[in-house]
Amino acid sequence: MSKKVKLGMIGGGSNSFIGILHRNAAASTELYQLVGGVFSSDFKGAQQFGRNLGLDKSRLYKDVDAFIKGENALPEGDRIEAVSILTPNNIHFEAVSKLIKAGFNIICEKPITIDSKEAVALEKLSKKHDTVFGVTHTYTGYPMVREMKALIAQGVLGDIQRVDVQYYQGWINPIIHNANLRKTIWRLDPKVAGISSCMGDIGVHAFNMVEYTTGLKVKKVLADLNTLYKDNKLDIDGTVLLRLENNIRGVIRSSQIATGEENTLTVAIYGRKGSLKWEQENPNYLQFLRQGEPAQTLKPVYDYNSKLAGISSNLQAPGHPEGITEAMGNIYAGVAKAIRGHKVLPGEYPTINEGVRGMKFIEATVKSNKAKQTWEKI
Amino acid sequence: MSKKVKLGMIGGGSNSFIGILHRNAAASTELYQLVGGVFSSDFKGAQQFGRNLGLDKSRLYKDVDAFIKGENALPEGDRIEAVSILTPNNIHFEAVSKLIKAGFNIICEKPITIDSKEAVALEKLSKKHDTVFGVTHTYTGYPMVREMKALIAQGVLGDIQRVDVQYYQGWINPIIHNANLRKTIWRLDPKVAGISSCMGDIGVHAFNMVEYTTGLKVKKVLADLNTLYKDNKLDIDGTVLLRLENNIRGVIRSSQIATGEENTLTVAIYGRKGSLKWEQENPNYLQFLRQGEPAQTLKPVYDYNSKLAGISSNLQAPGHPEGITEAMGNIYAGVAKAIRGHKVLPGEYPTINEGVRGMKFIEATVKSNKAKQTWEKI
Amino acid sequence: MSKKVKLGMIGGGSNSFIGILHRNAAASTELYQLVGGVFSSDFKGAQQFGRNLGLDKSRLYKDVDAFIKGENALPEGDRIEAVSILTPNNIHFEAVSKLIKAGFNIICEKPITIDSKEAVALEKLSKKHDTVFGVTHTYTGYPMVREMKALIAQGVLGDIQRVDVQYYQGWINPIIHNANLRKTIWRLDPKVAGISSCMGDIGVHAFNMVEYTTGLKVKKVLADLNTLYKDNKLDIDGTVLLRLENNIRGVIRSSQIATGEENTLTVAIYGRKGSLKWEQENPNYLQFLRQGEPAQTLKPVYDYNSKLAGISSNLQAPGHPEGITEAMGNIYAGVAKAIRGHKVLPGEYPTINEGVRGMKFIEATVKSNKAKQTWEKI
Amino acid sequence: MSKKVKLGMIGGGSNSFIGILHRNAAASTELYQLVGGVFSSDFKGAQQFGRNLGLDKSRLYKDVDAFIKGENALPEGDRIEAVSILTPNNIHFEAVSKLIKAGFNIICEKPITIDSKEAVALEKLSKKHDTVFGVTHTYTGYPMVREMKALIAQGVLGDIQRVDVQYYQGWINPIIHNANLRKTIWRLDPKVAGISSCMGDIGVHAFNMVEYTTGLKVKKVLADLNTLYKDNKLDIDGTVLLRLENNIRGVIRSSQIATGEENTLTVAIYGRKGSLKWEQENPNYLQFLRQGEPAQTLKPVYDYNSKLAGISSNLQAPGHPEGITEAMGNIYAGVAKAIRGHKVLPGEYPTINEGVRGMKFIEATVKSNKAKQTWEKI
Repeated sequence: MSKKVKLGMIGGGSNSFIGILHRNAAASTELYQLVGGVFSSDFKGAQQFGRNLGLDKSRLYKDVDAFIKGENALPEGDRIEAVSILTPNNIHFEAVSKLIKAGFNIICEKPITIDSKEAVALEKLSKKHDTVFGVTHTYTGYPMVREMKALIAQGVLGDIQRVDVQYYQGWINPIIHNANLRKTIWRLDPKVAGISSCMGDIGVHAFNMVEYTTGLKVKKVLADLNTLYKDNKLDIDGTVLLRLENNIRGVIRSSQIATGEENTLTVAIYGRKGSLKWEQENPNYLQFLRQGEPAQTLKPVYDYNSKLAGISSNLQAPGHPEGITEAMGNIYAGVAKAIRGHKVLPGEYPTINEGVRGMKFIEATVKSNKAKQTWEKI
Repeated sequence: MSKKVKLGMIGGGSNSFIGILHRNAAASTELYQLVGGVFSSDFKGAQQFGRNLGLDKSRLYKDVDAFIKGENALPEGDRIEAVSILTPNNIHFEAVSKLIKAGFNIICEKPITIDSKEAVALEKLSKKHDTVFGVTHTYTGYPMVREMKALIAQGVLGDIQRVDVQYYQGWINPIIHNANLRKTIWRLDPKVAGISSCMGDIGVHAFNMVEYTTGLKVKKVLADLNTLYKDNKLDIDGTVLLRLENNIRGVIRSSQIATGEENTLTVAIYGRKGSLKWEQENPNYLQFLRQGEPAQTLKPVYDYNSKLAGISSNLQAPGHPEGITEAMGNIYAGVAKAIRGHKVLPGEYPTINEGVRGMKFIEATVKSNKAKQTWEKI
Repeated sequence: MSKKVKLGMIGGGSNSFIGILHRNAAASTELYQLVGGVFSSDFKGAQQFGRNLGLDKSRLYKDVDAFIKGENALPEGDRIEAVSILTPNNIHFEAVSKLIKAGFNIICEKPITIDSKEAVALEKLSKKHDTVFGVTHTYTGYPMVREMKALIAQGVLGDIQRVDVQYYQGWINPIIHNANLRKTIWRLDPKVAGISSCMGDIGVHAFNMVEYTTGLKVKKVLADLNTLYKDNKLDIDGTVLLRLENNIRGVIRSSQIATGEENTLTVAIYGRKGSLKWEQENPNYLQFLRQGEPAQTLKPVYDYNSKLAGISSNLQAPGHPEGITEAMGNIYAGVAKAIRGHKVLPGEYPTINEGVRGMKFIEATVKSNKAKQTWEKI
Repeated sequence: MSKKVKLGMIGGGSNSFIGILHRNAAASTELYQLVGGVFSSDFKGAQQFGRNLGLDKSRLYKDVDAFIKGENALPEGDRIEAVSILTPNNIHFEAVSKLIKAGFNIICEKPITIDSKEAVALEKLSKKHDTVFGVTHTYTGYPMVREMKALIAQGVLGDIQRVDVQYYQGWINPIIHNANLRKTIWRLDPKVAGISSCMGDIGVHAFNMVEYTTGLKVKKVLADLNTLYKDNKLDIDGTVLLRLENNIRGVIRSSQIATGEENTLTVAIYGRKGSLKWEQENPNYLQFLRQGEPAQTLKPVYDYNSKLAGISSNLQAPGHPEGITEAMGNIYAGVAKAIRGHKVLPGEYPTINEGVRGMKFIEATVKSNKAKQTWEKI
């Protein structure tokens, strides 16, 4: 591409896990130049933080309004073109609405809003203003997840017969059993986190993987969620039965109290002709099973890779493991291509529609669980 | 033990997969002597088969009645003491009833009967006649499954928070899509297989693993089963939500159309203090996870093994893999100890009560599925 | 086969690891009937042991001479036909010589003798008396090792370019650092164990795997062996450079002080067109690599298996792990077929020639090491 | 750190695998700002390349002389402070000498020169001019390799008893069998690649891992190298016996014709009290073995990590895999800290002394092989 995309960030300052991931991801593409942003609600801290990154003081803003005003005052070629939204999700809506109206392209963390109404409104707004809107469902950026999508789209698995996705973590376990702690973290505070913890934070990734890899829509869900303690408002564990298009069955299993699990997102898609299995913690291996034949292990950077997977590795050398930075980077790369008007393959970046779908999934699971396991449409 | 247990078999002749497994399992314990039986409904074939095994012609019987009559005519010390039941499950009930009444100890394949009524009746009969009744839930015989049971009983995991068991196979896939084939195999014939294929054949193993390893009862289930074709009467795939004692959540996932899967029974038990994970296809590895500490891999034949696991390896040498023969053998060994009146540890062999529980599980899942996913008690 | 082979054993009594392995292996084939033997030099103990196995007292002998005399006095059809030699290797030669002269077929543990002279003499004697002589290089019995052999013989790998075999254990580690202990175990006593511990006990297995799987001869070796302590006479660790036929390079790495390793025999054969890798501790997986193509994992019990691998599983059901008992059993089965005069595929059992080759390997490595790493012919 | 280090690059332009790795590595630290360089000997291409990266045209130089002249003409605060050397190794010496004399800090790819004389000369020069000199032995940057180093330094393994390092690739296989191809690639051209291909390119990494992780020096080597074809001058495969300090034994196995292997660098260090094993392709797992205890799997980002490993992950969240970019980045970070005068832990970046050691290793192996496997000192 002829010229780097000028990037701004809202949130992600200081020791934010997500901040450094987004910055490094953008850098790894060599398609972005980080220029400025609103790194924190603490303006002094944000300024210090930005200067440490080597950014010009004039591009470090106090809030989103100042950001919009300041950038719009610049000549068009100097202006920030895309904004990454890394704040807690309860404050996405207002900021993103303003930014879209001001013409900025958006890269937004999930869940994109506090509920599906907001999400749908953003989707409309984005269409109206014709801005690019990428949602960082990070795991869709791994080459072998993209290979899954491509192989399934090519019909390699035949009709899908079963979908099984797991997302297990253990990190809430030491918190949930402490009555004080569990009242204080934002993930368990409905005002900040919304109506769900486990489904909202990680179950929604699992859901996205189902629709991303299979290309099929989930039509309805039946959810069995667990809060473990009565004074805990939000689910921290659950199982969700799925009905996809064509009456295909599936299941999502997700937990934040699976003691000792780190980040074990696994995706297994079983088809009539073959099956594919993938694990996030070993992302460069894709198992391909067929009845009566030796299992195959597909890896990145081979000629046999699909186009979508093929463009998703920086190092074109097998056996040099790339990880989550490059996965996120691949999504940034897709957004950059879209901003520059290049043709983008389906799946190069998750769009706001995937963000909307995710919000609807969360709401349907919570509704089903409240009704003691009814089937709820998405 | 002073003297080998004299063993007979009903079924298991010819090329029966289960027959050779039971014979080798019994032999591996060095506690049994196979003496005779009714290896097949085809008497001539059964006789030839028995003679090939080196058995005395006089102990090869035409049917169960002849077996009982013939053995009872022998002096007590020569008589067969235990009988393995390896026929299709629809003919278990009558044969086993007669054998128990005649005083034989029983080792029975699962599912033990065609429905839970029969199973309960056998349980009563067995108690009344004070015979040993082992059910070959084979996977409970693996040393590392026994280690799971022992560690959980010791409280190493703390309160259980989540249970997740998978049993996936792919072998029905090439059959189910062929309209003729799917009408002809006995697994899909309700008259022979009973009311369920997937839950009845393998889901029931998964269920047994839940109760065996945790020592907790499943109180109710909600099942989503799949027959794939309307003219197929029996489920070949399904997901079952579980409520265990103390409101503990769990899930069983089971399929016979998971293309390319061989026999992937996996058990994951998540507790407040730690978690344990095991896979049948790599049975000598047990993962022990704790939050914030390195994962440990437990293996058989170490001093750190529990007593129950410790007695469950023939070769007391680490790194010499034993497999399913020895797992089944461990169950046979437990039954032999019980027959000889030795003290048996909890879990040394699955009893008829586990067989009864399995039948109730199968019935509850089918009922829940018919009612479109209601919670059904077990 | 029409009639079971009557089997005797010299050694292997009491708690012998190797004894129960051989008995269960023979039993697993359903081709042998264990009849009697000399289970221990302690006759009383041996008698008790034999009776516990259910053997007839008259077939439990005081020593090899009594064994030969007693068996030869029986009618031919009742006589023991094959004898398993499970004693320490320093007393193999005399016993085996007598047994061969008396017409018995032999199944012998490795290393078959104390030196290659004895081994060659036994080979000649065996030929002269036309007896079957199987050597229990156990690991050649695994189906996937046999698949390696078959695939390489078919040319699937093309020209072999590199051979790399590892055999690591850690069990001598707790012994070797204790000055008293290391003087007392027989493995480190040259009078009993011969000239080598590590190469003699396990390096020789690695060597056998090289020649067994590739079908190529090792022409010369260069060895770097380690005794760790000066007062320890026998190597307990070493690396051996190999030159095979056609100037092919290879390496054997073997250790008994690889702390924490159990029994990690791994075989990697790299060819011009492809490569095969196998690990003893996970014996049912065979990795097949080709440049630029997805790696394949071959497993037993599939139609794609070679004939040699195909006949090497008892249970014809994928995913039901068989282990070392069945591996050893496959060797017993090959010997039984040979005794009964059936056609035996190359590789169905290791012959005395493989035993002779092993002895020469051990001697060449010790010689090379003494000379400070010279190339020595085998 | 207060201010980003201004970075230049010599080489690494266009589609260079190593170029993008270095750029992304530097970026991932957020401690560097890439400013300019000599990206290619093709000046026009280099200029285009640099502008695509968003660099100022004035900092894109024709050659090293122009680079030095241009940068030195700038005010000190604007000047490039560190230069990455990514050209083929035959042209390292002259360029690096000039740059050191001109006061630039160096980050240099390995092997750092064409022979050890040059390397030693650079070492002296670097000391004389008191510049920081980092060598990109990339694999030392992985957190779990650093954990190995730290644990061994802490004495967790006790006395080291055996060292076994493998570095297998297959990529030369399709080239070496083609008589034309093998004459044309630079890796096999002594004028460009120096005296060795396999040892020079990857064996030297294996050697570095031995000395890096154990903290021990290799005293002498005995090498068996293979060129496969007579008209091929440079080794493409080999095994090297090692003697470390204290007479410790070890082995390096390395190949570029291990068909189907990608980049399987594995390190196994066996000590009296425990052992550590690591694989480059799954870099976030470190196996810790002890006799008689469950194996442990150590991972990054835990409190139990050593300080050296602890500072070597960008994302402080377990289960989010970082890869080779971050490994290389960790080396860049160490160099940046050294340039800024901060205290650097042993092992934070490989120094030129490690580069010198590597050159001596390569020369000793080639000498040993020529002499048909003599022991050669390093």
